[in-house]
Amino acid sequence: MVEQLQIRDVRVILTAPDGVNLVIVKIETNEPGLYGLGCATFTQRHHAVATAVEQYLKPFLIGKDPRRIEDIWQTSMVSGYWRNGPVLNNAVSGVDMALWDIKGKMSNQPVYELFGGKLREAAAIYRHADGRDPQEVEDNVRAFMEQGCRYVRCQLGGYGGQGHKLHQPDHVLPGAYFDPDAYVRSVPRMFDHLRDRLGFEIELLHDIHERIVPIEAVRLAKQLEEHRLFFLEDALPPEHLDWFRHIRGQCATPIAMGELFVHSAEWMPLVTERLIDFIRCHISAIGGLTPAKKLGTVCEAFGIRTAWHGPPDLSPVGQAANLHLDLSSPNFGVQEWSALSERMHEVFPGSPTIRNGYAYVNEKPGLGVDIDEQKAALYPCHDVLPAWTLSRIPDGSPSRP
Amino acid sequence: MVEQLQIRDVRVILTAPDGVNLVIVKIETNEPGLYGLGCATFTQRHHAVATAVEQYLKPFLIGKDPRRIEDIWQTSMVSGYWRNGPVLNNAVSGVDMALWDIKGKMSNQPVYELFGGKLREAAAIYRHADGRDPQEVEDNVRAFMEQGCRYVRCQLGGYGGQGHKLHQPDHVLPGAYFDPDAYVRSVPRMFDHLRDRLGFEIELLHDIHERIVPIEAVRLAKQLEEHRLFFLEDALPPEHLDWFRHIRGQCATPIAMGELFVHSAEWMPLVTERLIDFIRCHISAIGGLTPAKKLGTVCEAFGIRTAWHGPPDLSPVGQAANLHLDLSSPNFGVQEWSALSERMHEVFPGSPTIRNGYAYVNEKPGLGVDIDEQKAALYPCHDVLPAWTLSRIPDGSPSRP
Amino acid sequence: MVEQLQIRDVRVILTAPDGVNLVIVKIETNEPGLYGLGCATFTQRHHAVATAVEQYLKPFLIGKDPRRIEDIWQTSMVSGYWRNGPVLNNAVSGVDMALWDIKGKMSNQPVYELFGGKLREAAAIYRHADGRDPQEVEDNVRAFMEQGCRYVRCQLGGYGGQGHKLHQPDHVLPGAYFDPDAYVRSVPRMFDHLRDRLGFEIELLHDIHERIVPIEAVRLAKQLEEHRLFFLEDALPPEHLDWFRHIRGQCATPIAMGELFVHSAEWMPLVTERLIDFIRCHISAIGGLTPAKKLGTVCEAFGIRTAWHGPPDLSPVGQAANLHLDLSSPNFGVQEWSALSERMHEVFPGSPTIRNGYAYVNEKPGLGVDIDEQKAALYPCHDVLPAWTLSRIPDGSPSRP
Amino acid sequence: MVEQLQIRDVRVILTAPDGVNLVIVKIETNEPGLYGLGCATFTQRHHAVATAVEQYLKPFLIGKDPRRIEDIWQTSMVSGYWRNGPVLNNAVSGVDMALWDIKGKMSNQPVYELFGGKLREAAAIYRHADGRDPQEVEDNVRAFMEQGCRYVRCQLGGYGGQGHKLHQPDHVLPGAYFDPDAYVRSVPRMFDHLRDRLGFEIELLHDIHERIVPIEAVRLAKQLEEHRLFFLEDALPPEHLDWFRHIRGQCATPIAMGELFVHSAEWMPLVTERLIDFIRCHISAIGGLTPAKKLGTVCEAFGIRTAWHGPPDLSPVGQAANLHLDLSSPNFGVQEWSALSERMHEVFPGSPTIRNGYAYVNEKPGLGVDIDEQKAALYPCHDVLPAWTLSRIPDGSPSRP
Repeated sequence: MVEQLQIRDVRVILTAPDGVNLVIVKIETNEPGLYGLGCATFTQRHHAVATAVEQYLKPFLIGKDPRRIEDIWQTSMVSGYWRNGPVLNNAVSGVDMALWDIKGKMSNQPVYELFGGKLREAAAIYRHADGRDPQEVEDNVRAFMEQGCRYVRCQLGGYGGQGHKLHQPDHVLPGAYFDPDAYVRSVPRMFDHLRDRLGFEIELLHDIHERIVPIEAVRLAKQLEEHRLFFLEDALPPEHLDWFRHIRGQCATPIAMGELFVHSAEWMPLVTERLIDFIRCHISAIGGLTPAKKLGTVCEAFGIRTAWHGPPDLSPVGQAANLHLDLSSPNFGVQEWSALSERMHEVFPGSPTIRNGYAYVNEKPGLGVDIDEQKAALYPCHDVLPAWTLSRIPDGSPSRP
Repeated sequence: MVEQLQIRDVRVILTAPDGVNLVIVKIETNEPGLYGLGCATFTQRHHAVATAVEQYLKPFLIGKDPRRIEDIWQTSMVSGYWRNGPVLNNAVSGVDMALWDIKGKMSNQPVYELFGGKLREAAAIYRHADGRDPQEVEDNVRAFMEQGCRYVRCQLGGYGGQGHKLHQPDHVLPGAYFDPDAYVRSVPRMFDHLRDRLGFEIELLHDIHERIVPIEAVRLAKQLEEHRLFFLEDALPPEHLDWFRHIRGQCATPIAMGELFVHSAEWMPLVTERLIDFIRCHISAIGGLTPAKKLGTVCEAFGIRTAWHGPPDLSPVGQAANLHLDLSSPNFGVQEWSALSERMHEVFPGSPTIRNGYAYVNEKPGLGVDIDEQKAALYPCHDVLPAWTLSRIPDGSPSRP
Repeated sequence: MVEQLQIRDVRVILTAPDGVNLVIVKIETNEPGLYGLGCATFTQRHHAVATAVEQYLKPFLIGKDPRRIEDIWQTSMVSGYWRNGPVLNNAVSGVDMALWDIKGKMSNQPVYELFGGKLREAAAIYRHADGRDPQEVEDNVRAFMEQGCRYVRCQLGGYGGQGHKLHQPDHVLPGAYFDPDAYVRSVPRMFDHLRDRLGFEIELLHDIHERIVPIEAVRLAKQLEEHRLFFLEDALPPEHLDWFRHIRGQCATPIAMGELFVHSAEWMPLVTERLIDFIRCHISAIGGLTPAKKLGTVCEAFGIRTAWHGPPDLSPVGQAANLHLDLSSPNFGVQEWSALSERMHEVFPGSPTIRNGYAYVNEKPGLGVDIDEQKAALYPCHDVLPAWTLSRIPDGSPSRP
Repeated sequence: MVEQLQIRDVRVILTAPDGVNLVIVKIETNEPGLYGLGCATFTQRHHAVATAVEQYLKPFLIGKDPRRIEDIWQTSMVSGYWRNGPVLNNAVSGVDMALWDIKGKMSNQPVYELFGGKLREAAAIYRHADGRDPQEVEDNVRAFMEQGCRYVRCQLGGYGGQGHKLHQPDHVLPGAYFDPDAYVRSVPRMFDHLRDRLGFEIELLHDIHERIVPIEAVRLAKQLEEHRLFFLEDALPPEHLDWFRHIRGQCATPIAMGELFVHSAEWMPLVTERLIDFIRCHISAIGGLTPAKKLGTVCEAFGIRTAWHGPPDLSPVGQAANLHLDLSSPNFGVQEWSALSERMHEVFPGSPTIRNGYAYVNEKPGLGVDIDEQKAALYPCHDVLPAWTLSRIPDGSPSRP
């Protein structure tokens, strides 16, 4: 070991092996061969995160002791005075996860050991089944069931009710049109079909994706009560969280919330009033493993389980971070999962794997995931804005994406 | 009567006539023949209770006036400074019940007379009907009905959903596996069957035994509303009692809670907010007759009835203590009952008896139950940890027992 | 007018005429000479804001109709899916203010006219008086009073209690050390001095700058009650806003809060429970004029006044935006003000001016402030992190900056 | 490393080097030389804790993987079904701390590194100054100040007002008599004296030790507000915590609470309503490092600091556990400290040390404290019940100890 361990460099690696922009932070120490990787993926704003890391966190961190994770987290978060937003939180997350990766390597143990050791062998996952009609959704659910999945999220037409005939005024602006009225009518019908055909042994989930007005979310949550969802996701946008009180007052449908959260003012009221049942933050968007572990602990005290966000716009490093929490947390609920391609495994050796509906990490020290920078460089990021973020409703006005 | 009545000895008797470890405290006075018996049964930690009595309470009590029950209770509770736990509360309970037994004998009256006299002749009891499938439960309920029972607790496969095929990851740890999802699906089906066959004249109960996550308890309580349970038992663990607010907000299913309670901080919020309908503490676990009588009084003030815990891991002395409260309390609800074997009656002469769905105490002074120490010695305690306290769910993680 | 008005370009101008990094967004239209300026100043993270504007908002906006301010605001906010943070909000603010500037120019009227016209001729301002001891603060207050100021914020030693002898352990890390205990002792003594010398005609303010733990904020607010502050600023950090309930429960000291706010989840509970008296957001940090005007309207409904953040790290464009709101809002309270240098006026022709304790905008169409880009280029931004964001308390641990 | 790491033995070591009974748990693994130490000190009930460890936890643990700390904590806590009491929690703590000690040794790092690394170099401590009159207290405070202490707890006559002439009826029982009326009168006078002589630079604390009725605690807290205590300790007993709402409603005196806590139902309402400012549990009494770390995290989310219990009835292993939390927790407040004798350092090599008002751990892997079992055996435990646990008030009735 070197005399005094220090951070020698902080680098951002942008790569998109599967077409989704990923942001990785690599922290190198003055100990030869000792480095860590963290996920800072805010896919729609990757350059802004990269700038935040390279221009601000890098000079702030070089020369610091990488073992002081909590000190670095606390000071990084307030070093720009303003904080609690997705760009800066992701930047800090890249650093934070990389430091836990280093800490694990220094301990010669997987990170979950530092978090108290395994409570379970693997994390049960949920997959996403989409379809243009209920029958197609059913077919896709069955395909996942055959792979051993016990939890499937069911959606008609992506996250909305595409394909409906829109009734519009003249001259509306271009955009991804979505009819919330058609949507709320179609979802119960979809679950009528699915429960009729699939029974109740399979756990079904649904994601409102915050696309309807609050009272429609209350109504839909109540209407879906009989279908016994494992949980209903993102019923309300971050700006209208107080409406969850009405959902809770009206029905016992389990509620999952949080992928957009970036601020404790969002989750604390929901957690302390027990208005949700699953916290599902995008852990890099709240600042990394350090705050996610704390949030999980707070949720444990209130009887709330975790279901950390695990979409395609998350690197395998981020998926591994989720899993190290999942394996060591008493209040783990379920893990969202998106399939990793072969290419992704090549760029990120050591990426988590799934078998029979469960996700596994490897047993290497740290987070267990590496990056092949040469291969990563073969898949540069792009600047195409996803169409779904430009949602509008039939009269032409903007809607939540 | 002796010049100055004093406690001369405090002894612990451990015995397991029916295979369940029981802890009895015997207090002897300097008045020849005047002694009392108390129940201190914490069956899974019997040695620890015995140590607490023998090493700490015995020297603390010898020489004290046994008539000063309240003084002894107050000072015993705080004599170790830390308090409010199952080991020390059971130890104090053994002493407390024994002192009430002595007080009754000195009064030449049953203890219920000191509590204000009988309000009822006997205590209605509920029994426990188990079965591998709804039909077997039905058969067992009918058997109890034929014995005159009007209250039966119905469970499928012990307290969980044993027998379900588990979907597990690799390498799970050994344990008593339980599938909470299978459980919550099976219980409503059982009650569909039972209400269909048995109608609504028989009072049915159910015990969740704290084995599911809070929102599932809310959902199950709501779903069982139509089955008109007499009460739903132990819906939530002591660590998540605030969730009772959500159960109350969602349905009118009567709620019974408390066998694990050891602290007023557990019951006071539930009672003062009227979130439960039956208090069912294990009275030795809260410190004996003195605190149980007070708790019953507080519950009366809030419109809540008593249903004191009466499982097999309670001695006949403890059952008698329950019954003396039951007979004299305006807000008695129902008494849990486990059949006493012939052997138990031999070891504990004077044990309560049941007839036609009601439990009776005898009319002897005190609690009315004695112990035959020679026979008790024939049935020593054992050190086998019950498997059900090692519960795990399918992914291998620990669950509430 | 062109056939179809469109946004032709969106540019970021970085400049630091007084040594503080400022971020200006300039939106050019296809109408020759029609452009607008907006403030997007997040001084400690200027490059990240610039990246967000240039890489994401610019391509999103080019070709759009600049008159559709609300539509652009709504869609810009959610175009990256994650939102509600200081980098993205400032970026949107730069656009939003520029669009209001354009709207005013198209109307040939100052922006305050579009907001309903003047309610007052100028905005009363408060200034910042600092000093190493109470006498020096007094002297500085008197200097402002002589300039006509009726509102002065009084601080000892910057925002902390610098200059105190620290009692430290061995080996503490470098940083801007601050002793919160010394601070809370010194502030009441300062106000004892000031009220004794200056009487109660002058309005005194104080800024805790979130640097003490919650209970100390409660205690200090209560202790300062007798000094009749006009308001007490930033008593608590964004992570502990619920403690305002305790401040309100203990004293009638008027409370101002909000410069760090970036999310409605921060201000909504404070406003709806009437726990604060002045909202003082940094309006570019919440997304510009569009959300600030709405927030002011909501505050009016709850009896809360505005005191928008107006520090040196705000461009004259941002100060003008504050003032256009101030002049037209019924519930305007006071405006924070930092003196603008001659150089600033040269770089930003049309900057607001102050006379006799009041701030004035000019009467030109739009926001009334222009930028001389050639002069702006003479004062490039720097990358020096301010020392005060690296605050530590005596034991070496990080503190709020 | 061995093929499969296992717990080979669990032993209890009882020792009283300074006359206070201490309970240490030693866990040995099948890896030669790899063992851990934990503190399980419930000094007034040491035999009961030892029985719980030896009779129940030892057979439960042998053969288990010591790296699975969280799994072992969760399953140990519920393995006896009843839980949440001081005997069983201390027993589990002995195991839990020993497992963290082992984890640290396996990582070749101090335990604070596993908790996220150092946030501060050492923990500021408070000492206890007692005196028969205010002058003697003052003298003792000054002695601590000369040692560098900045925090001193001030008490008149131990924890009560001994020495007052009692006005009693005939024939009261023996005990440690205490006059609460004299006490509440004397304390403000003591602080009048101390603040008059010592000023406000020194942080003074006071401990009510739960010995007065609730309204007197409210009154005293309010009366002491002007003396600016750093905190007021143990104002109310665990049975009357709801009265803290009234203390908070009446004054801004900082409140510390928790040394008697054994159950989350005690702390959760106080924390979530922000009714206390310092949590100061005896961490072995709540089950060890695992729950204490979680509780600290929950408190951090609510703006509450830690002041873990650090009395003489804590082993150096327990003090080290406190300090490893203190060094790595953002919301550390202050650490109670009792001087360790030379003899204690001999029995426990590596015990924490103090310098200039701060406590330090050594930098060895794990908790850093070892035990010399041969020396420990020279100082056997005793069975003398402390007199102060037998408190009575003048009329002869029992009081809180």
